[in-house]
Amino acid sequence: MRLLLAPQLNPATETGWRRTWFDIIYRHDTPPSRNFDLILVVAILASVLVIMFDSVPRFHERHARALYLVEWAFTALFTLEYALRLVVVRRPLRYALSAWGLIDLLSILPTYLSLLLPGSQSLLVVRILRILRLFRILKLTQYVEESGILIRALWRSRRKIFVFLCAIMTVVVIFGALMYLIEGPEHGFTSIPTGMYWAIVTMATVGYGDISPATVPGRFFASILILIGYSVIAVPTGIYTAELASSLREASGMPGHHDARGCPECGLEGHDPDALHCRGCGVRLPAPMG
Amino acid sequence: MRLLLAPQLNPATETGWRRTWFDIIYRHDTPPSRNFDLILVVAILASVLVIMFDSVPRFHERHARALYLVEWAFTALFTLEYALRLVVVRRPLRYALSAWGLIDLLSILPTYLSLLLPGSQSLLVVRILRILRLFRILKLTQYVEESGILIRALWRSRRKIFVFLCAIMTVVVIFGALMYLIEGPEHGFTSIPTGMYWAIVTMATVGYGDISPATVPGRFFASILILIGYSVIAVPTGIYTAELASSLREASGMPGHHDARGCPECGLEGHDPDALHCRGCGVRLPAPMG
Amino acid sequence: MRLLLAPQLNPATETGWRRTWFDIIYRHDTPPSRNFDLILVVAILASVLVIMFDSVPRFHERHARALYLVEWAFTALFTLEYALRLVVVRRPLRYALSAWGLIDLLSILPTYLSLLLPGSQSLLVVRILRILRLFRILKLTQYVEESGILIRALWRSRRKIFVFLCAIMTVVVIFGALMYLIEGPEHGFTSIPTGMYWAIVTMATVGYGDISPATVPGRFFASILILIGYSVIAVPTGIYTAELASSLREASGMPGHHDARGCPECGLEGHDPDALHCRGCGVRLPAPMG
Amino acid sequence: MRLLLAPQLNPATETGWRRTWFDIIYRHDTPPSRNFDLILVVAILASVLVIMFDSVPRFHERHARALYLVEWAFTALFTLEYALRLVVVRRPLRYALSAWGLIDLLSILPTYLSLLLPGSQSLLVVRILRILRLFRILKLTQYVEESGILIRALWRSRRKIFVFLCAIMTVVVIFGALMYLIEGPEHGFTSIPTGMYWAIVTMATVGYGDISPATVPGRFFASILILIGYSVIAVPTGIYTAELASSLREASGMPGHHDARGCPECGLEGHDPDALHCRGCGVRLPAPMG
Repeated sequence: MRLLLAPQLNPATETGWRRTWFDIIYRHDTPPSRNFDLILVVAILASVLVIMFDSVPRFHERHARALYLVEWAFTALFTLEYALRLVVVRRPLRYALSAWGLIDLLSILPTYLSLLLPGSQSLLVVRILRILRLFRILKLTQYVEESGILIRALWRSRRKIFVFLCAIMTVVVIFGALMYLIEGPEHGFTSIPTGMYWAIVTMATVGYGDISPATVPGRFFASILILIGYSVIAVPTGIYTAELASSLREASGMPGHHDARGCPECGLEGHDPDALHCRGCGVRLPAPMG
Repeated sequence: MRLLLAPQLNPATETGWRRTWFDIIYRHDTPPSRNFDLILVVAILASVLVIMFDSVPRFHERHARALYLVEWAFTALFTLEYALRLVVVRRPLRYALSAWGLIDLLSILPTYLSLLLPGSQSLLVVRILRILRLFRILKLTQYVEESGILIRALWRSRRKIFVFLCAIMTVVVIFGALMYLIEGPEHGFTSIPTGMYWAIVTMATVGYGDISPATVPGRFFASILILIGYSVIAVPTGIYTAELASSLREASGMPGHHDARGCPECGLEGHDPDALHCRGCGVRLPAPMG
Repeated sequence: MRLLLAPQLNPATETGWRRTWFDIIYRHDTPPSRNFDLILVVAILASVLVIMFDSVPRFHERHARALYLVEWAFTALFTLEYALRLVVVRRPLRYALSAWGLIDLLSILPTYLSLLLPGSQSLLVVRILRILRLFRILKLTQYVEESGILIRALWRSRRKIFVFLCAIMTVVVIFGALMYLIEGPEHGFTSIPTGMYWAIVTMATVGYGDISPATVPGRFFASILILIGYSVIAVPTGIYTAELASSLREASGMPGHHDARGCPECGLEGHDPDALHCRGCGVRLPAPMG
Repeated sequence: MRLLLAPQLNPATETGWRRTWFDIIYRHDTPPSRNFDLILVVAILASVLVIMFDSVPRFHERHARALYLVEWAFTALFTLEYALRLVVVRRPLRYALSAWGLIDLLSILPTYLSLLLPGSQSLLVVRILRILRLFRILKLTQYVEESGILIRALWRSRRKIFVFLCAIMTVVVIFGALMYLIEGPEHGFTSIPTGMYWAIVTMATVGYGDISPATVPGRFFASILILIGYSVIAVPTGIYTAELASSLREASGMPGHHDARGCPECGLEGHDPDALHCRGCGVRLPAPMG
């Protein structure tokens, strides 16, 4: 069917270098674009690690200057990449306002803002959202099909899990209020929301122990809540396993196809392999490689 | 088969407004009754939120007056609704003594009682049971079938889960007594019931840490108990998953039908779609819509 | 086939009252024997509750005298029952040395020994093993088939679970030693066994928090151990669910039969319905009722 | 097919005793080699137990001399075994550099090094890796097939579990940074890595309680993280169960064969039953017994 396509009139061919960089940044099936993706993954991971270590007081004190320079280097790199992304697509505003465009912006903006608003340590933490950019690249790899199956099964079981969570939340509200009555503020149950926090921590078998029942009736009702949680912990597992099994069955009969083309107009990715036009802005897509 | 039904002689048609309000309150398939349900859900949720925040000391002190007024507004609203429910059914007493009728009463009574018995803060917490009223409305929605499958599977596995809980409780009693012997009161195991509370908290992998073994043999037996709990945590999951799978198989061949008619006599809901008479009081039901 | 049996030459028919009591105690299919079982279940549960409450200091101080008398009443009752059991079987020694006979003895002996050895509080806790006597009666009820399926699936998966536990224990030993090296005694990891106790508590997601890593590398390796535990928590569930499914499939084609006759010679129970002779001592069994 | 094999020209037949000991050490299907394996298993387990107890301060102080002698006895035994292993294979260096050869060396080296570097307690803990030597013997028993099924299912689900762990780690990074912002160092969240440690401990439902949220928004987001963890705890279970079921189906049609021959040249084990040559060094293998 692809043989019947009209000759490729790629709308992004105005200038040579823009076309070249468009292919490098928005395609994922040519050697240069794969290298670009790889460099981006490494840069994102390294920059997230730098943000993490920068938050450790011991590191921050000792290597403050080095961390500062490294962070600016990453910010410069990501700014350059962001600028390139905007330049090589035809409608930069459209890209800038898309979800990926906003995440791109969010991962460089805090560094610049910190110049204007000194002491805004908390603002810098926002840069950790850069990690979300990984998924843009990850979703175009061989893992996309695997995660597709997992997500489809989650999606199918959403209603059952919603009903389940409603029931859980009702139990949480009732036991939270009950323990607030029984144990009271002197044992840490200072309010009903605190009791609900304790009930969630208990039912999900996390059990921090920051708040725990100290009276005999309190421990009795806590034991009942634990046994309820222990009995129903099976429910989401049962739901999910049953749905996953049927998803796997379907998946085995269905070829997993993912397309590596980005729209030259707005940068949207994830088109169907036989799509001729971008599903976001309707522009003609480049022909798929291979 | 419904075509063969005699002409609808609805027993609730005495007066126009009672008929109208009956349809609004007890039916769930007309636009006005759907709006009524929606308002009720919002009011219940808002009122539960108010009770929650009222229990937080900081909120209570600052907004005591506002919270007091809002609570009385909700109580007035629910009282009006309760009165209407009693007025529009033929046998109000029957409705008042049903499970839903009692929950309706319980969610307004504490506020009135607090006028007679000042300082009865704990009484006010009882109002949180209002949250149960949500299920009356929830059970008539599209989620009813989903929860039906989940509950049917739980019901089928009840015997196996009972046997399982018996075995668990025996292990809990024996390890509770054992740890009481080994660790003794100086490490928090002040009695056998306390040891049993610890054993439940441990087996269910909650692990608060408010009581934990401190001696070498105590830690040894605790490790054994943990490994037992870890090995058998699979049992209820296995039981439930197996039963759920067979429930899902049956459900796929069975149309999910839920009936939106309430009995005009006693207000009972949840009749079969082809039921002609209320299964609670035998009175003739209105014809199903659509 | 039972019609072909020779006329019943029951070997326990020497005296009328012994025959009568044998049937009451060791059979479970006649009205008097069912009543006897019921009384025994209630007495065992009540006596276990008394032992539990006796261990609570507050109860013990206030009701010491009453608890003492009640305990002696239960001991007298169980002694009488034990004597009867020995009298009505032909070979009392054989019964006394069987597993059930020893549990019967263990549940009365500590009370008598406490007269000789005053202050032996810990000895009295042994009486809690009375709870095991419940299973003697429970195993003859309708729940026997349910538990049979659960146990058969556990038994089938024993090898896989053994391999799994071996792998877990190796991880526990290595991480226990590693954390002992990294964290050391100053953070609670006082020895390798203590480290192993911590590793078990961590992998099984119990997490008391009595010992927890405090250094950066310690927390890093703890996170890895947690992720290992979180990933493999699925393994026993998977094993058990798969085996349970096949057990359930087989069980549906197989009638569940349980026999209510006890051996008049040695008191052994749980014979096949078509057994003519006791599988323990070879004596002829009474014919099954109905 | 084995009947067609050429007459066995075993390359290890130079001297009688080397041949004899090769068969004892590297084969696992003759009575003497089975006894050798058994002695080795007991020696390894005993020596690991000694290392464990040696780390307990109380034991170390009281039995320091005895533990020292026992440890040297085990080291002598394992050194002798290591020397024999090297002597009886043709290419000792090849064996010495293989994985098993290195583990063999690691389990004796620390004791000798402790003579040169006194006070190197931590070095001695390395000897606990001896426990890994158990798997060399275990993998030739009847359990090999069971563990094979478990591992094959894990291997098949590796991609899905990798995707799952990526998603989990992203949630961990974001919530770790979020809690570092909200709770801050005063409540124990001293850095983003600490927040991530807390998020892992929380999501996996371990919940030590060494760090726990203390502010209202902190508890709110902690509750959300717990509910996320509680909902997705089903995912690896579902993945693994589905894969295990298909592994079990395949395994039932496939005979489990394991070969008990070791290579006379380099000591490599685990050959296919119909292998004529070592897959490691290409030398001709001895014929399988029986």
